[in-house]
Amino acid sequence: MRKKALIATLLFLPVWASPRATDLSVEKWGIFELTMKGPGTGNPFAGIDLSARFTDGERTFEPDGFYDGDGLFKIRFMPDREGSWSYKTISNRKELDGKEGNFTCTPPSPGNHGPVRVRNRFHFEYQDGTPYFPFGTTIYEWVFQSGETRRQTLETLKSSPFNKARFLLVPPYKEKYLSGPLKLDKFPFVGSSTDDFDFSRFNIEYFRHFEQCLQQILELGIEADVILFRPYDGEKWGFDRMDAETNDRFTRYAVARLAAYRNVWWSMANENSFMRYLTEKDWDRLFQIVEEKDPYGHMLSIHNADLIYDYTKPWVTHVSFQYYNAVRAFGAAAMVREIYRKPVIHDEINYEGNIASRWGQLSGEEMVFRFWLAFIGGTYATHGEAFVDPSDIDWISEGGVLHGESPPRIAFLRKIVESGPQAGLEPIDYHYTRNIAGKAGSYYLFYFGKEKGGNWNFELPARELEEGMKFRAELIDTWNMTITPLRETFEVEKSNRYLFTDKKKQSVQLPEKPFMAMRITRID
Amino acid sequence: MRKKALIATLLFLPVWASPRATDLSVEKWGIFELTMKGPGTGNPFAGIDLSARFTDGERTFEPDGFYDGDGLFKIRFMPDREGSWSYKTISNRKELDGKEGNFTCTPPSPGNHGPVRVRNRFHFEYQDGTPYFPFGTTIYEWVFQSGETRRQTLETLKSSPFNKARFLLVPPYKEKYLSGPLKLDKFPFVGSSTDDFDFSRFNIEYFRHFEQCLQQILELGIEADVILFRPYDGEKWGFDRMDAETNDRFTRYAVARLAAYRNVWWSMANENSFMRYLTEKDWDRLFQIVEEKDPYGHMLSIHNADLIYDYTKPWVTHVSFQYYNAVRAFGAAAMVREIYRKPVIHDEINYEGNIASRWGQLSGEEMVFRFWLAFIGGTYATHGEAFVDPSDIDWISEGGVLHGESPPRIAFLRKIVESGPQAGLEPIDYHYTRNIAGKAGSYYLFYFGKEKGGNWNFELPARELEEGMKFRAELIDTWNMTITPLRETFEVEKSNRYLFTDKKKQSVQLPEKPFMAMRITRID
Repeated sequence: MRKKALIATLLFLPVWASPRATDLSVEKWGIFELTMKGPGTGNPFAGIDLSARFTDGERTFEPDGFYDGDGLFKIRFMPDREGSWSYKTISNRKELDGKEGNFTCTPPSPGNHGPVRVRNRFHFEYQDGTPYFPFGTTIYEWVFQSGETRRQTLETLKSSPFNKARFLLVPPYKEKYLSGPLKLDKFPFVGSSTDDFDFSRFNIEYFRHFEQCLQQILELGIEADVILFRPYDGEKWGFDRMDAETNDRFTRYAVARLAAYRNVWWSMANENSFMRYLTEKDWDRLFQIVEEKDPYGHMLSIHNADLIYDYTKPWVTHVSFQYYNAVRAFGAAAMVREIYRKPVIHDEINYEGNIASRWGQLSGEEMVFRFWLAFIGGTYATHGEAFVDPSDIDWISEGGVLHGESPPRIAFLRKIVESGPQAGLEPIDYHYTRNIAGKAGSYYLFYFGKEKGGNWNFELPARELEEGMKFRAELIDTWNMTITPLRETFEVEKSNRYLFTDKKKQSVQLPEKPFMAMRITRID
Repeated sequence: MRKKALIATLLFLPVWASPRATDLSVEKWGIFELTMKGPGTGNPFAGIDLSARFTDGERTFEPDGFYDGDGLFKIRFMPDREGSWSYKTISNRKELDGKEGNFTCTPPSPGNHGPVRVRNRFHFEYQDGTPYFPFGTTIYEWVFQSGETRRQTLETLKSSPFNKARFLLVPPYKEKYLSGPLKLDKFPFVGSSTDDFDFSRFNIEYFRHFEQCLQQILELGIEADVILFRPYDGEKWGFDRMDAETNDRFTRYAVARLAAYRNVWWSMANENSFMRYLTEKDWDRLFQIVEEKDPYGHMLSIHNADLIYDYTKPWVTHVSFQYYNAVRAFGAAAMVREIYRKPVIHDEINYEGNIASRWGQLSGEEMVFRFWLAFIGGTYATHGEAFVDPSDIDWISEGGVLHGESPPRIAFLRKIVESGPQAGLEPIDYHYTRNIAGKAGSYYLFYFGKEKGGNWNFELPARELEEGMKFRAELIDTWNMTITPLRETFEVEKSNRYLFTDKKKQSVQLPEKPFMAMRITRID
């Protein structure tokens, strides 16, 4: 039933008559879908232009349509304002051109906050204004797994701290996908793993399955960081070295089918520079196709490998970064966001695990440490884990269940972040003091990282402070997940031009263990 | 005499006749200067276009000329190839147009290696192929000081480790430059500190004085990072808020006068974003003027303040960075160069000193530590110092003498760098092991920073290694400036896919003090 509310399908079949179903309604940021019978002969994926102009009288959106098999063409639209909308199709084929109609956009259902966009330069919000703090995870191949594994993945996600998931639109080449229980029977293109693919025709069933997964993720309130291209082809299937025309058509088709899902983020590629057949100009062009064809301006980025894509380019909405050292020492994460002046998500910071490859050997402590460093730098991080598992199922690849120690601590961090400044954690005085984030004057989160013990003097950077302001403090054990309010309160006075200190010069004895933090909140 | 060899002046006076002095010669990368009588009425700084085409038969350079007072116009040219050159002037004024001549370019004198350019993407070399490893210092206002202070500055530089100096083309507003012994009598523009400036006319004497200083620096073998604009105006003189036409003319005039000095680097501004009257588009335009007008492609960058200029832009040759945290922790410096894919010079990393402002409070140890972090990250750093001095003379501002403890240690580092890989120190395996730079397979510089003591296992990243290779090791005390060869030699064997270790599993006991390094060199 829930799905029905989200996707309203308007089917014109077999012959266009007068606009029907004008009472059809769809919720705000749901999907309105128009279906039309069109030319079924030849190659309907090529040479047929189709779009529709949707307007609420003030603004106009023009999503592309797409061929959905059986002679049917569809156009999907995500209305972003309640009330009456009308549309009219545009096509170079008579039977698809000039179709008109209306529908009503109803209030969003609970939990539907719309798509995510940038807020306050370095942060995010849903379109309804609700802050969105990404706590992502990585499940690259989950959509290609058995129904059972997929169900398990969704179950795991449901009780996890993760509200963003990165996964591939195109399967990677792996032996296990060629035969046995995981043999893939569907690919983005018509053909099979043993035949040649027909890159001019898309496999409808493949995309429908992907959309079903996308919808399941959406229903869990999780943003989907959909990865359009990937290098992992082992020189086999050719998905990493299709010609420009095919790449462009694939990109347009993906956008036409998926853009109306409000939880979609576009990740142009995973480890893009490992796709040696594509140049930076190719990536620019593919970015621009998405930018032009996506009517809603979904989040749009690319995940780098050895050559860092130029994230300053105007079509990049945020930095989807793979650079471990950006979250291994204080001060680096904030620098990245300042260089790009965009939100930064450290989308690969190595994985918690114990596999032979060192990118999958983080301890839980180190994973959580890196998460904290990301947040203290005013940026965001994405989780992944890779444990040697007898079933050969890795969370980062297949999904399934989580084995690591970091997820509960990431959930703990998420609670702290979400109950903190709604504008997002901002690094404070970070060119000198690198371990404070919050909101100057009212909220300070100090993170002590791997340092143990010591006496911490109550001392705050001067900005936004006035003498006499009072604060309370809580000692946070980020690993053991405890928050201990201190009995003392603190009243600040100016110590020098840079610092305010407690009037009574009170200090706090930190326990002899790492990963402690201090939360200072203004009370008066 | 030395100067004469560097600048060959060809004077056409008072009337153009036939080309004279065809036997005139100038050394390679010296300055050929052509002087012509031109219109002296009206404002000769405006409305007169003048340039000359210089060619050696293969390539052509077209530097702009400039008005040099007394009705004289000059064109300066820096030939970069030995042999015969000819030229012909181009002007919208008849008396300056179509003048032709020849001269001979002779071999460069000792110590003249030509201008600096980028080498190996992240490093530098002189145009004759000699590697150039910048070890810069900062003497912003030295050209505006008394002759005695300037002589002292030059003396200090002569015995310092510094081979690059950053200084201002435009004086900052300071009370002491208004009256008393340091009262400035010359400004870039006609006028004085108490009158209004005539921004349409340049002060010839001012520029000649600046050129003299530039020449003195050149004769010491020091690159001059000439800063064209600066924010430090206290709302007084107006040099930070001239209109676009004036800024453009000033930039063109500076390039016309100074580009033929081989040691010039262009720094568009110091702390550019503090110049609130200029937008990023303004900076782009000014950059493009320099790029277009400088025939030699001198090094060209800008020094950022709170908003980091987009150093990915094509006209930026290298990153002139002010971001202290980039050199306070392992791993950050290498990230900066990877983001920009250009050489990075950390041109402001705080200053060694004891002044009230915390940007001038580094200990000598911390300054040297930051230098090492820059170099271990495959980047470069610039020194500065600011000590409270009874004479009110600060090295970073006025020059004079050095008081700090870092310069000898920077000299020590320079010797290590210059005797290391000539292609420049490259970080090795830095995404995992952040403290090694050198050349994989033959040279490894490990830096232990603030860590003290411990047992260091002989362990090298696998790249370029083969079993049986032999190495020697030297323990370096970067603070006490000692290099102690270890008696052991080490033969490597493969330990795992990432590491080679010593066959005998030898380790090295590090002393219980910080700032140690280890140099590992292949012997067999």
